[in-house]
This record gives sequence, structure tokens and C-alpha cells, in this order.
Amino acid sequence: MTENHQIVIAEVPDGPLQQEHYASVSAPIPEPGDGEALLETLAITIGAGQRAGLQGSASYAGAAQADVVMGGTGVGRVVTSNTPDLAPGDLAMGPTGWQTHAAVRGSELTKVDGDLDPAILLGPLGTNGLTAYFGLLDVGDPQPGNTVVVSAAAGSVGHTVGQIAKLKGARVVGVAGSDAKCSMLTDELGFDAAVNYKSDDFRNQFKAATADRIDVYFDNTGGDILGSALFRMNTHGRIVCCGVVSQYDTASPGPGPRGIPGLLVNNRVRMQGFLVFDFADRYDEARAEMSGWIRAGELSPKTTAYDGLDAAPQAFIDLLGGATVGTTVVRVAS
Amino acid sequence: MTENHQIVIAEVPDGPLQQEHYASVSAPIPEPGDGEALLETLAITIGAGQRAGLQGSASYAGAAQADVVMGGTGVGRVVTSNTPDLAPGDLAMGPTGWQTHAAVRGSELTKVDGDLDPAILLGPLGTNGLTAYFGLLDVGDPQPGNTVVVSAAAGSVGHTVGQIAKLKGARVVGVAGSDAKCSMLTDELGFDAAVNYKSDDFRNQFKAATADRIDVYFDNTGGDILGSALFRMNTHGRIVCCGVVSQYDTASPGPGPRGIPGLLVNNRVRMQGFLVFDFADRYDEARAEMSGWIRAGELSPKTTAYDGLDAAPQAFIDLLGGATVGTTVVRVAS
Repeated sequence: MTENHQIVIAEVPDGPLQQEHYASVSAPIPEPGDGEALLETLAITIGAGQRAGLQGSASYAGAAQADVVMGGTGVGRVVTSNTPDLAPGDLAMGPTGWQTHAAVRGSELTKVDGDLDPAILLGPLGTNGLTAYFGLLDVGDPQPGNTVVVSAAAGSVGHTVGQIAKLKGARVVGVAGSDAKCSMLTDELGFDAAVNYKSDDFRNQFKAATADRIDVYFDNTGGDILGSALFRMNTHGRIVCCGVVSQYDTASPGPGPRGIPGLLVNNRVRMQGFLVFDFADRYDEARAEMSGWIRAGELSPKTTAYDGLDAAPQAFIDLLGGATVGTTVVRVAS
Repeated sequence: MTENHQIVIAEVPDGPLQQEHYASVSAPIPEPGDGEALLETLAITIGAGQRAGLQGSASYAGAAQADVVMGGTGVGRVVTSNTPDLAPGDLAMGPTGWQTHAAVRGSELTKVDGDLDPAILLGPLGTNGLTAYFGLLDVGDPQPGNTVVVSAAAGSVGHTVGQIAKLKGARVVGVAGSDAKCSMLTDELGFDAAVNYKSDDFRNQFKAATADRIDVYFDNTGGDILGSALFRMNTHGRIVCCGVVSQYDTASPGPGPRGIPGLLVNNRVRMQGFLVFDFADRYDEARAEMSGWIRAGELSPKTTAYDGLDAAPQAFIDLLGGATVGTTVVRVAS
């Protein structure tokens, strides 16, 4: 390898994401500066939340610009290091972006266990898994016997939320976008019920699946599913606002759900937004507990993997279109 | 007095409330049953939330029916008592409804200090005052130096919220529906700023009044004011969902505010509905602290008083139309 293969933003989309919004380019392999390490990217992960980063100003990821390397989290092998915590050959996770080589500040990198598949590091032990862990346990606070509902339930965050909720003794209902995903949730991951929101009969099915109403709704979507859940909340229920998949792929978010704030008052519902970064000082604790669950076979991470960096735009389009399950990973090198 | 003068619901409104939705009737003075006391009503209070009780099914107050006595909280003097905690001559507060005489179960009555004006008992020491106290302090959790915004700020709950927030060291901004109310808030009650939401320039004025953004928004209105506040929340801000004045006087609530749930996520905002009844075991504590503030001149309760039971419908219409300030009280007898 003598050059850095990169995927850059060719054009900031103002409608549904398409291949032509990206371009594949070559650049010199960067020299790591003081305090930086040069990584050879092994894998990157893509999350629906990154679509928000391609919007204008209303996103926590900042406004996107054309001709810059697409951002994103990856796992890489250290090639050279100017930071004392990393040595050549180490594996590290951090903001590599969509490129084969990245010079990243040591303070933004986490050294990770070289024996683990990057898909595990980027999934349950990465941002999505930590989001599921803290969002469910700290913000949602599920109690044994509670009904926990999660939307985008077959996604990286959602399928982890549901499994952790089961481990905590809750009854778990998933909402997903296809019958195949719903079957996976109930047949493979132990969800008690799953409902396809694209079904003509969604509202009735959702009502039947939440006969005891909802104590914790973990919302990855916003929009109509949030609207339906609001009318099913139990007294003192908690809505964990994690993401807004339904509105990322558009420049003009619609109105909020009907019944806010009236339903929150009547049922004393707490609706709380969070970002996982607020829990950064507890990542080690969460990773240790989730690693234990994975080793014990109590948590089964799902991955949809793509091969080669050039597959990244299609992986992102597939993710936004609902064609992936679990963590979406692009394997860049081995 | 040989008869019970009552205001009954003549017709359940499906649009703005009007006089003809009520009728004034006479009935025999009731005999108190076992465990009940007969009260002669001295005063009743009216709150905007009661409008929700005149809707169909979506209200915590239950669906309204024609030809029943209008419900409501009052203070009365005990005439005869079949409950051990009350004796003739005692003053008690409870669900008297809009009538001169009420037989009420002792378990629903609270014996109150006969030396206090019923307007104080029904205002800061009644449900509205307790709502302000627990909603602000327990749900909103204001810290010294925080910016606290309250809507319907000249109302019974709102003007108490703002004054308690000042006592706790917050900077307080009120939103009200007239320039006169705004002047009262800043000139008489110590609010740092007040904005008239009916002003053409509301958004700019609101922005200027919340230059440091909002840490606690105490929402009595829902609707557009909630929508504006959402865009001004600080990171980790709290929205206390107390009432939905903007939507009580209509049969079909509009869509929720734009930006939910996206803004809650980005700014990690907690939005929490509550009802004061959940804090019933701490009412004494709150009444003791608020009585102290009133005696010390640190909390100045405002009252809009009407004379005679037959004024109750007009008082309610005035309240909903924004023509009252502070606690709306109808004095029935002295």
C-alpha cells in the first residue's frame, strides 16, 4: 500500500442518499503528527445517526461539507505511533473515517483487544452497544416484568436493547420494518413479540403486542412509531429518545407526534433524550458487562458485513433503506 | 338556607366554553352519609385544567356528562359531620363542586386553618400551589443561576412557579398573554423578564429574554410556546409538562411541536409529565414551606375573585380567555 484510498462526500444530499453523493479518491498516506497514530483501517461501522451528519445545521454531528472524507468510527491496526499509549501492531478504535489509512490523535483512540473480531468491537462493544446499554439501563430504567418496546429493533442499537432488556427480566416487543426481521427477533434473539410497522394492520398488532401497555419505549425512529407508542404508555412510563431514523433522510422533519405534551401529563411520562458520550466515564464498566454476556452466550450480536471500502456508500444506503440487520460493518482490510 | 344552589353542566361543549353550557338549579340540601361531612361552601377555585374534564375520553379528569354538578375544589365550613376528623365549624378543603352545600367523604377532605383566607387556601396552599412547588422543585430541579421559563406565567400555577424559582436563585422569564400581565410579573413579582406571546415580535423577544438559553421550562400551555422553548433549551435542560392550556378549549388537539424527538436527543433534554397527586404524601411539607414564604413576604399570591356562585361559569370563561391573573376564586359565602 502506497496510497490512501478514501471515500469523500461528493455532494451534500438534500433528499434520499444515493451513490453519487460519494466519490472514491486516492491521497498520500498521511504522516502522523505529534500525539497521533497512523492506523491501517481494518473495518468501519455505519450508523443511521450519521445521516444526520449529512444534513445542514440541525445535527449534533455538525454540518457536512463536500470534498471531505466521510466521517465514521473504525477499528485499525497501528502502523506508526507518536502517542505513548499505542505501539505498532496494536488495535485501536476511533474516528478513522472512510479511508484505508488515518492519522488520528491518541486522545480520540481506544486501544482494544486484538483477539476480538472488529465487528464485535464496533457493535456491542462500540458506540451502538454502549448506546443501547446506557440508554436502556440508565435512561429507561426497566424493572423486572416491565414491558419494554424498542423501534428499529433489528438494528445495531435495537437488537442489543431488546436482548439486554430480556436479561433484566422485562417482556420485550420489537418494532421492525419487515416480517423477516420480526422473525429473527422472536426466533433467534428471544424477543417476546415483534411487529412489522409496514404492515397495514400495524396499529392493531402493536396494540395486541402491548396488551399490558408500555413501561419503557426505546425510540430509535421518532415519527409514527413514537406517535403510536405515546398512546400506549403506562403511568410513569419512560420514553428513551435515542434517534430519529424516520427523519434523517429528509431535509425537513415533520411535526412532532400528536398528544405531546398532553399524554405526557396525563400518564406522567418521562421522555428523555441522551447521547452516549455523556456516559464516557463508564464505558469500561459497560464493555466488561457486555463482554461477559457475549462470552456466556446471553447476548448474540448480529452483523451485516460488506467487503471493501468502496462498498461503504451502498452499505449506508442499505442501512437507511432497512436492508441490514444488526451492526452494519464494512471490512476494509484483514 | 333551605336549598342547595348548584351549577350543573347543561351541555358538554365541543368548542369554546360558553355560558349556556351551564345551568343554575336548586336541589335539596344533602344529608351526609356515613363517613361524610356536610359543608357549606365558602369559596371554590377554578383551574384551566378543568377544561380538560369537559372533553371526551382523553382526559385524566374523566369524561364529562350533562346534568351533573360541575366538579371543582372548594373550601367549606362543616355543618354536620359523620367523620371523626371534622367537627361542625371546622374549615375543610376538598371536592365540593360548584354548589352551596356538599356532602363529601372525610377521606377526600383536608382540614384547613380557619384563620386563613380561602383564596390563600385554594391558591398557594391548594392544588395549584402544590403543583407549582413539586413540578418546579422535583421535576424541574432548578439550580442557582439557571434560567427558568414558565408559560401561563400570570396564572395560578405560573406566578407561583416563577416566584419559587426566584427564591431558589434562578433567573426567571415569564410568558403571558398581555402586556399588563407581563408588567405585573416584572414590576410586582420580581420576574427578570416577561414576554407577551401575542406580540407579533414574540419569537425575537423570547430569544432576547433567553439569551443564555433555558435550563428549566415549566410548560402550562403546550402548543407554539412549547415549540419555541424546545429550540432554546440548554444541554441537559428539563421541560416540566404540567398542562396544556392551549389545547383544552378544543375537541381536536393539533400535532405536537416540530423537532420532537430530535431536539431532545441533540440537547439531551428531559421532558416529563407529572400530576400533583403523585406527591400527596409530601403536601404537608410543601404547605409548611410555602406558608413560611407567604408570612415572610417572599411569596405574593395573586387572586382574581368573583362574587357569588352564579359567577362561576363567567369566571371559568374569563380564565380560559386569559382575562384573570393568579388564582381564580369564586366566593360563595362568607
